[in-house]
Amino acid sequence: MELFHDKEDMRKWSRAMKRAGKKIAFVPTMGSLHAGHLHLVERAKLEADVVVVSIYVNPSQFAPNEDFGSYPRDLRGDLDKLQPFCVDAVFNPYDLYVRDAGQNDSELSERKASSQQKAVNEGADDTRDLTSKRQRYTHEHETWIRVEKLELPLCGKSRPGFFRGVATVVTKFFHIVEPDVAIFGKKDYQQWRLVCRMVRDLDFDIKIIGCELIREEDGLAMSSRNTYLSSAERLQALSISRSLKKVKEAVLNGTLDASSLVELVKQEIIHASGIVDYIEICERDSLQPLQFINCPAVICIAAWFARVRLIDNLELEPPQS
Amino acid sequence: MELFHDKEDMRKWSRAMKRAGKKIAFVPTMGSLHAGHLHLVERAKLEADVVVVSIYVNPSQFAPNEDFGSYPRDLRGDLDKLQPFCVDAVFNPYDLYVRDAGQNDSELSERKASSQQKAVNEGADDTRDLTSKRQRYTHEHETWIRVEKLELPLCGKSRPGFFRGVATVVTKFFHIVEPDVAIFGKKDYQQWRLVCRMVRDLDFDIKIIGCELIREEDGLAMSSRNTYLSSAERLQALSISRSLKKVKEAVLNGTLDASSLVELVKQEIIHASGIVDYIEICERDSLQPLQFINCPAVICIAAWFARVRLIDNLELEPPQS
Repeated sequence: MELFHDKEDMRKWSRAMKRAGKKIAFVPTMGSLHAGHLHLVERAKLEADVVVVSIYVNPSQFAPNEDFGSYPRDLRGDLDKLQPFCVDAVFNPYDLYVRDAGQNDSELSERKASSQQKAVNEGADDTRDLTSKRQRYTHEHETWIRVEKLELPLCGKSRPGFFRGVATVVTKFFHIVEPDVAIFGKKDYQQWRLVCRMVRDLDFDIKIIGCELIREEDGLAMSSRNTYLSSAERLQALSISRSLKKVKEAVLNGTLDASSLVELVKQEIIHASGIVDYIEICERDSLQPLQFINCPAVICIAAWFARVRLIDNLELEPPQS
Repeated sequence: MELFHDKEDMRKWSRAMKRAGKKIAFVPTMGSLHAGHLHLVERAKLEADVVVVSIYVNPSQFAPNEDFGSYPRDLRGDLDKLQPFCVDAVFNPYDLYVRDAGQNDSELSERKASSQQKAVNEGADDTRDLTSKRQRYTHEHETWIRVEKLELPLCGKSRPGFFRGVATVVTKFFHIVEPDVAIFGKKDYQQWRLVCRMVRDLDFDIKIIGCELIREEDGLAMSSRNTYLSSAERLQALSISRSLKKVKEAVLNGTLDASSLVELVKQEIIHASGIVDYIEICERDSLQPLQFINCPAVICIAAWFARVRLIDNLELEPPQS
């Protein structure tokens, strides 16, 4: 398994693979890997000859009040988890928003060299050292990708700037890794839809695959942020998946109006001391709200349990007529 | 010289070239080619093994009140002009904002086929037929690239949305043509700077080359829009290049404060019955306004003569100390 920190090295490897006739699948992650990620990797292996996994906590998708600093990081642990899956390359880049041309060149090279050495010595996530200097450089990055409609609803409302950061970093990864296929989890449903739209609109020649959400045995949707939950909070958080089961049954039993289904979820979460951020039933492509389930739909949920914000979703089918 | 209308055909050709070890240079144009464009093509030939020229009047960079409909189009004439330069491929795409997946697929294929046939029969610019249907499809494109600082000053003020359209279509072309090098004219100075910034920020692996502005014998900066000028208006428009000559001399003679230099241009243009849109002296990379020429600078001008808006610029050097 190759490990690249430098984007030029990553690109060079990808191009060598292409020249050798290999098809490349790419799995972008923020690390702190769990079985959900590994499921994406397994899917990637089915889609291509070689698999690249990126591990990068992307600063531009966190708001200043969010958990960028405390987001779990464990490069060595992540590499150990990937090893049995015979991943071909891991891309763990330096700060991708650092200016890499002009007057700061020599300083950047020094930082890269010392940081890379440190990573080798300690197996540490070397992006950490660099992110403290983020403020100093980020202002120089000024190009952002906006998926102007899909970025607005759901998580776009409570996390302004989030999808701008996601679309931009995914584009950067696509330009560096140059994959033929990229795998996204449908756990982040809006993110997956937004990437599909961006790829179509900007004429990327990359096939996007959405993989089904993976749940823990107790029903909780897998997420790196689950580690923030105390065991009591975790029990409360199960109200989300429990409510989704009830929604599924209700739809099968003919309840098709969105407000009744939303209310069902809301009661379940509130009863478990959760605070609802949003519960919406949407059309699956545009994520526009639906009043009735009369087309392929998805119910999307975000809720807080103590200081932890969790998201979950379930695709819903209209009744067969 | 190959002529491609379909983006998949274009991409296939580019990839075949790459596989054969050829370096690709790309010259994006809106057609109506003049000696300025041909100068870009000549430069492209020095930079790579094969040259692709695109001819596409990009709807998304025109505001509703602008000259998208009347912008000069002459595909047959353009092809004739390119022939002696041994350009390898011309890319004259269909409407790049038409949805190309999903329910409209079959309709689009039909339109493509009939339009392509028409182009072959008549040597016509086949994008014209499609753009009348633009309104119907454009709303479905929703991904836009914003270069948030560089898009604001100068032309960004008087043409809101212009650079959003430029950055987005350039990205689309880069993803379709996949060039190693792309050539832009410094006549559109802000556009050139913005593309450079975008390429750096989004990690495109494409070398951007800015080519010097080319002038007519009488000094007028070459532009496809010059054909709009009556001979009387054209004489008046020479005030722009005349004023730039005076600015150059004034700087050489030690006048370094921006307001004096701007005033010099303003008087010259107003005296010739022009209406100034903007005259600004800026730092060359950021295009932030300068009060004094104490670093590499550029003076940028936009002015109206009758119904024609012209732009021009001149790089200015601070005095050698």
